[in-house]
Amino acid sequence: MTDISRRQALLLALSAPFASCALDADGQQAPGMNHKMPDTPNVHWMGDEQIAMLMYPGMTVMDLIGPHCMLGGLMGAKIFFVAKSLDPVTSDAGVTITPNATFGTCPRDLTVLFTPGGTDGTLAAAVDPDTRAFMADRGARAKYVTSVCSGSLILGAAGLLKGYKATSHWSVRHVLAGFGAIPTDARVVQDRNRVTGAGVTAGLDFGLTMLAELRDRTYAECCQLMSEYDPDPPFNAGSMKTAPAEVKAPMVQMLTEFVKKSEALAAANKA
Amino acid sequence: MTDISRRQALLLALSAPFASCALDADGQQAPGMNHKMPDTPNVHWMGDEQIAMLMYPGMTVMDLIGPHCMLGGLMGAKIFFVAKSLDPVTSDAGVTITPNATFGTCPRDLTVLFTPGGTDGTLAAAVDPDTRAFMADRGARAKYVTSVCSGSLILGAAGLLKGYKATSHWSVRHVLAGFGAIPTDARVVQDRNRVTGAGVTAGLDFGLTMLAELRDRTYAECCQLMSEYDPDPPFNAGSMKTAPAEVKAPMVQMLTEFVKKSEALAAANKA
Repeated sequence: MTDISRRQALLLALSAPFASCALDADGQQAPGMNHKMPDTPNVHWMGDEQIAMLMYPGMTVMDLIGPHCMLGGLMGAKIFFVAKSLDPVTSDAGVTITPNATFGTCPRDLTVLFTPGGTDGTLAAAVDPDTRAFMADRGARAKYVTSVCSGSLILGAAGLLKGYKATSHWSVRHVLAGFGAIPTDARVVQDRNRVTGAGVTAGLDFGLTMLAELRDRTYAECCQLMSEYDPDPPFNAGSMKTAPAEVKAPMVQMLTEFVKKSEALAAANKA
Repeated sequence: MTDISRRQALLLALSAPFASCALDADGQQAPGMNHKMPDTPNVHWMGDEQIAMLMYPGMTVMDLIGPHCMLGGLMGAKIFFVAKSLDPVTSDAGVTITPNATFGTCPRDLTVLFTPGGTDGTLAAAVDPDTRAFMADRGARAKYVTSVCSGSLILGAAGLLKGYKATSHWSVRHVLAGFGAIPTDARVVQDRNRVTGAGVTAGLDFGLTMLAELRDRTYAECCQLMSEYDPDPPFNAGSMKTAPAEVKAPMVQMLTEFVKKSEALAAANKA
């Protein structure tokens, strides 16, 4: 469990002049906290969200850290990096992260249940009975059920996307239909309490969307400024709509096997 | 050391029809690799870069993972997550990552030396004698000396930015002048072999810039499409030029102490 204590300490200083009911780290109303910020009457600087971020071998680490870059700014929230055991988990590109909760120790009632994507590791997690059971159980009660990239395949396989609009990495978005979802082409798709992001780097846009949803727009904008999220990619090839043909062709080819396996997963799920 | 073997396996399938001299995982020319991709004569699918990414307690993990999201796509490259020891390193917001190299085992001659930023942890790393010695030594020979966010304070403290244009997180960009650098307001600043990114999420733009520098534009665009980097932030508050006043004021206040300490670091360095 990460209670973001360093950020809390920093942000308590911040919240002092602005919040109308800010609490200190022990949950007590702190002195000098009765000022109001006239322009932002709805800013809730402190919260108590319980956020579970699934980890599994072969996950794409940016799918996890992009959302965490934003969600990690939630003062008062607790973030659980949840895996089958507390053993370190290695991503598809070799980044090894230590979980701080297991399927057994993760709180039962979550504000946000989140899963990152990947390729072969994601398909393995999607068919793993323990992972499916965990996602289905926590997803049944979580206030928000969410994913980035091909993580939506895990949500789908756990039966959490039936009848919901959702998105995924561009290569497998269409596969979501096999899980009863309505594939939707957008950077972030919200349908009731399901919030899904597109591929990998969409986790930043997803994270900002969640901050506004969990707190408010000003809170989200503060985290956007702190993380200097003012993107300026030197090229314009980040989408199948804008990438040149000589970029699209090899990337589509590279993902052919993964797409086939994803389609097989959805077909097996239906059967 | 991470040799991105999974990605290599995937990308070897990709490179087959396009590369003129692609090598397999053992460095042997693979069969069927003699086709040329007429539109991309300069794409070098395989390389042999040695990339060191510094890790230290209190680093901002997105500063590390954003660049890695792009650099991790370099087929044939080796990425070293370097720390003082092989003990797991915990970020400012509680993400724990395992290094795969130490100051002693990291290769002496690097293609890219990189450091992430943070706040108090960054200032501690910048004054740590072992870290400074490592950065100064590898930086003296590295083909590229690079950073994202306040990581440029570490480069500056190691004497690596004297006379170079450079950038940093918006809050401490001006501090770089104290290290003899020329603070420059841009998302990514390249001056000869120094490449520095602005705050946190600028690591993605930095990473793409490095991919084009190390390989070529098409290679970078392929990684951009694979990571679906087609940003669409729901708000426009990611820069001091665009954020509303009620967002700028609390964030400036929140960082006041960090800015003061950074200025003191630069002053001590000069003395």
